[in-house]
Amino acid sequence: MSAPQPAVTLTALSGVPAIQPGDDIAALLGDALDATGLEPRDGDVLVVTHKIISKAENRYRDLAQVTPSPQARRLAAATGKNAALVEIILSESREVVRSRRELIISEHLSGMVMANAGVDQSNVPGGGERVLLLPENADASSAALRAALAQRYGVDMGVVVSDSVGRAWRNGVVGLALGAAGIPALQDLRGRRDREGRELKVTQVGFADEIASAAELLMGEADEGRPAVLVRGLQWRDPPVTAAALIRERYQDLFR
Amino acid sequence: MSAPQPAVTLTALSGVPAIQPGDDIAALLGDALDATGLEPRDGDVLVVTHKIISKAENRYRDLAQVTPSPQARRLAAATGKNAALVEIILSESREVVRSRRELIISEHLSGMVMANAGVDQSNVPGGGERVLLLPENADASSAALRAALAQRYGVDMGVVVSDSVGRAWRNGVVGLALGAAGIPALQDLRGRRDREGRELKVTQVGFADEIASAAELLMGEADEGRPAVLVRGLQWRDPPVTAAALIRERYQDLFR
Repeated sequence: MSAPQPAVTLTALSGVPAIQPGDDIAALLGDALDATGLEPRDGDVLVVTHKIISKAENRYRDLAQVTPSPQARRLAAATGKNAALVEIILSESREVVRSRRELIISEHLSGMVMANAGVDQSNVPGGGERVLLLPENADASSAALRAALAQRYGVDMGVVVSDSVGRAWRNGVVGLALGAAGIPALQDLRGRRDREGRELKVTQVGFADEIASAAELLMGEADEGRPAVLVRGLQWRDPPVTAAALIRERYQDLFR
Repeated sequence: MSAPQPAVTLTALSGVPAIQPGDDIAALLGDALDATGLEPRDGDVLVVTHKIISKAENRYRDLAQVTPSPQARRLAAATGKNAALVEIILSESREVVRSRRELIISEHLSGMVMANAGVDQSNVPGGGERVLLLPENADASSAALRAALAQRYGVDMGVVVSDSVGRAWRNGVVGLALGAAGIPALQDLRGRRDREGRELKVTQVGFADEIASAAELLMGEADEGRPAVLVRGLQWRDPPVTAAALIRERYQDLFR
């Protein structure tokens, strides 16, 4: 019990109201943070679900106002999905990677491979007629939020914008980072050595993805309504890199 | 500041000695746990890197004692890897999924798709001549560790055996669960509703994978030597399921 144990604490912010287009996310998250009694410190990382960013950025689309292209109609027929929804998915995608009944996996405009290009029908007020797109640029949204928090608190916090995403060979979604600011989203261990002095074979760690997964443990998928989690106690040595670094370059992709 | 905020705490156990074949992992982890001053409680989850399980189970293989098959020699030539190492990787695999220079992705005997069938050359005493395989049955190892901890402390703890694994479309490894006991490794949210009362589209969460990723934030890949992390404050409603449930069935796999 001599030296303190390395520890990380995750605290959910539960007082965040339902977000409306145009809302000042940084102000609302700051108020929720203050209500927890936690005083932000250098090195804290605030994880925010992309949904509230998308809502503040008014990334809603109304299915009734979409005219499906012939391509969208064909894919809708093949997958059993709504043709207007498929049109929106295609407009958010660079290409369709796989599709089958009830499933479209595509490369989102950001380069991320995921189901439905991240277009979301859950937790969207108005039910089935409106859907919610991913933030236009989640790294930029992260940087803006980080700057606003730095101004409010005078501390150097990191920000991660998260989503729940499926995997190629595993059941269940896990938290991943769509955006990041102020942290090395991808950590590079090249040149470091293990306990035996051997150079490490594993050279890169998806740091921001692991942070997002940790935060998702508290956020919940259903009706919990905890859109933000403060992570305290993380340590890193690398300089900040955005979440774009987590996306594997197309030419290195063996699986499409 | 009325009700306490939902919070999760991760504490690294730093006093775990270097593990030898035949060691009583549960006793050594229990001693390290006691040294932290944390008293285990019902609902705590202990995350343990697979490496110390493999070492205790003497899952070492000596490259010098392996005679590579013709198939292993061909794959070694194509990938530039050591032929004896490739022989061991093949003996741990059901099939090779992809290979290229310096890279073999295969389906491990457990069904998990990963690089090198999880065969590990880092942190192995003796350097390049010996390698370390995954635990023979990580779910069984998890259950045994859980039972021993329950006997020692009289509490109902969960256990996750973790590894750092790469992904199809993302750079960097993240923590995943090779084994789990006492927790719903895969959580099923079917039938639950979001805040708007709509049934959730996302139906399953890789709970044990998210726990493993959270713990990896403290374990580190390099010389930190923190092979176990206690996770406190998690909540779940589903009955326990092993980590085998996280592996997507072959017939549902769109990516090989």
